[in-house]
Amino acid sequence: MSRFLSRRLSTFDPYVPGEQPKDTSLIKLNTNESPYPPSPKVAKYLSAENVARLNRYPDLVCSGLKESFSREYGVDDNMIMFTNGSDEALYLCFLAFCDENVGVAFPDITYGFYTVYADLCGINKKIIPLDKDFKINPIDYVNCKRTVFIANPNAPTGHVLTLEELSEVLCSNPDNVVVVDEAYADFSDSSCRSLLKEYKNLVIVGTFSKSRSLAGGRLGYVITSPSLVEDLEKVKYSINPYNVNMLTQLAGQASLDDRDYFRRTVEEIKETRAVFSAELEEMGFFVLPSGTNFVFASIDGFSGEYLLEKLRENNILVRRFSNPRTKDFVRITIGTPQQMKRVSHVLSEIVGGKK
Amino acid sequence: MSRFLSRRLSTFDPYVPGEQPKDTSLIKLNTNESPYPPSPKVAKYLSAENVARLNRYPDLVCSGLKESFSREYGVDDNMIMFTNGSDEALYLCFLAFCDENVGVAFPDITYGFYTVYADLCGINKKIIPLDKDFKINPIDYVNCKRTVFIANPNAPTGHVLTLEELSEVLCSNPDNVVVVDEAYADFSDSSCRSLLKEYKNLVIVGTFSKSRSLAGGRLGYVITSPSLVEDLEKVKYSINPYNVNMLTQLAGQASLDDRDYFRRTVEEIKETRAVFSAELEEMGFFVLPSGTNFVFASIDGFSGEYLLEKLRENNILVRRFSNPRTKDFVRITIGTPQQMKRVSHVLSEIVGGKK
Repeated sequence: MSRFLSRRLSTFDPYVPGEQPKDTSLIKLNTNESPYPPSPKVAKYLSAENVARLNRYPDLVCSGLKESFSREYGVDDNMIMFTNGSDEALYLCFLAFCDENVGVAFPDITYGFYTVYADLCGINKKIIPLDKDFKINPIDYVNCKRTVFIANPNAPTGHVLTLEELSEVLCSNPDNVVVVDEAYADFSDSSCRSLLKEYKNLVIVGTFSKSRSLAGGRLGYVITSPSLVEDLEKVKYSINPYNVNMLTQLAGQASLDDRDYFRRTVEEIKETRAVFSAELEEMGFFVLPSGTNFVFASIDGFSGEYLLEKLRENNILVRRFSNPRTKDFVRITIGTPQQMKRVSHVLSEIVGGKK
Repeated sequence: MSRFLSRRLSTFDPYVPGEQPKDTSLIKLNTNESPYPPSPKVAKYLSAENVARLNRYPDLVCSGLKESFSREYGVDDNMIMFTNGSDEALYLCFLAFCDENVGVAFPDITYGFYTVYADLCGINKKIIPLDKDFKINPIDYVNCKRTVFIANPNAPTGHVLTLEELSEVLCSNPDNVVVVDEAYADFSDSSCRSLLKEYKNLVIVGTFSKSRSLAGGRLGYVITSPSLVEDLEKVKYSINPYNVNMLTQLAGQASLDDRDYFRRTVEEIKETRAVFSAELEEMGFFVLPSGTNFVFASIDGFSGEYLLEKLRENNILVRRFSNPRTKDFVRITIGTPQQMKRVSHVLSEIVGGKK
């Protein structure tokens, strides 16, 4: 840290991303990436002809990408905005819809960036504990008088709220924005897009990093009512108008234009998750039901730290969080069936289970 | 605008980027893009094999890109940070090095985003007029007690400060950061990288958008002392850790690895600029000396608005700014020799010059 750093930032804890090791012999299950490459269409769209146009600024409104997105999800053009990963979308939501007068509410155990953004922007936060089953209880968010951020499914717990439960939050907070972070929604078909017609205060944030195998491309999006898109665009134009580069626009469009590939890879991950979860339970693990591409699990008699370390010794990388309630859980991304077989085998040796 | 937008943002003017028309028959000289495609190496680095790895998050520290950059510019690894275009770099500098106690100083006629960032971040600003020749006078920035932002060369005036003049600003502000925005420095070989050893308060911001023909790729950078890189990384990790996607990292690296192509295209633009500037002067234009890839020019008897409009009627797109002192200037990006011949011809018809 230098003596020039702004006073507010000097005492501030930034987000800590999962480790990104260079060693490709590791089974990397720590940052919820897809184990599958993106659709082969992506390489085709990134043709030499398109690359030669990189001297020009990218399309500010991402027309081609928006057209494919709009067609795929049946959402109007003026309800969509794209971002440099969904983290940027979340940050823009904090800037647009929270301030010194409007605080924020979110669960105690959820995506770590909500706290970071609230603190960075100096926003008053109400942190609401998950219930005893590690679930978000919608009643806790009723009539909240704050901007609400809910990850659905939640991370790292994997829990999914129903549309009815989300509606309860949305209709009881008509004067506040409710941001639903759907980073993992494709793995449980749980998107609340159908609620957009009814609730003008609903902001959906999503990403191409997980279910669309494009973590390396950095593409996030917001779907919301047109006047809220205008708000978010205003903030975007005040920070980084050309936030989505041309290559990423093409990659995202290619992914959307290959629906079969998308469905097939998501389906494979869901099937692998079912098999792996059952194996964990058979070994005696407590596994939270997951609507995502990861499982969050613990087992009596073994600390999370120990599990993480032992897996690492076997070249398997998973993640753990230091929150007191979940410190003995490990979050394991769903990889290929072969990778998960290996993880099951190693875990069974670690915990001395039946497998 | 929705009723949910944060109060501060409701009354706020965002940056207005230059028009990005879809009509490719236009001669587009309004956003200072290079008329040349990026190095052919870029397409090679964006191989199908690399694209297939997009399911993984990008390298957080941009190792490959950093290695090529470090080699090309003789700057240590720990003095470099990459960003999603140089606008993001500038924004991070505002967040890191300005706050309610530390204000900012910059010229009245310069890159429009400085004012936008200062206002967005609620930072007190001292706006210092250019001198009568449209130049930044370094004496105005001596002992300034604020974070200083200087575009060198300045935009849209094209004026270049010497290293001695910059040193004057740097050494008289030892307790403040001086950000030198070198977006156009390659077009006058005017980078102040050699001052980094002496001045630990110097932050250089640069971009691959202009001289490296990668506006569509969005790649910016910061070069500064290691402890200031730490500060900026802290802010980056608090907003968007994976800010530079994998494709852009590869594109940037490819550009750096093709030094000949870079030098040749920059040289061509400088030659075209010399020819075009002389032609403008011959027609009676007042042309500010330019160290950039654009010229800023006006002519008695014709308003900037008129020139812009008449050029547009002839399918030539240039830019104009509404500042009272420069409202009758047009900013014309240097295109190919053929494009500039056409512009000269059209302008001579508009102003009835000799050409």
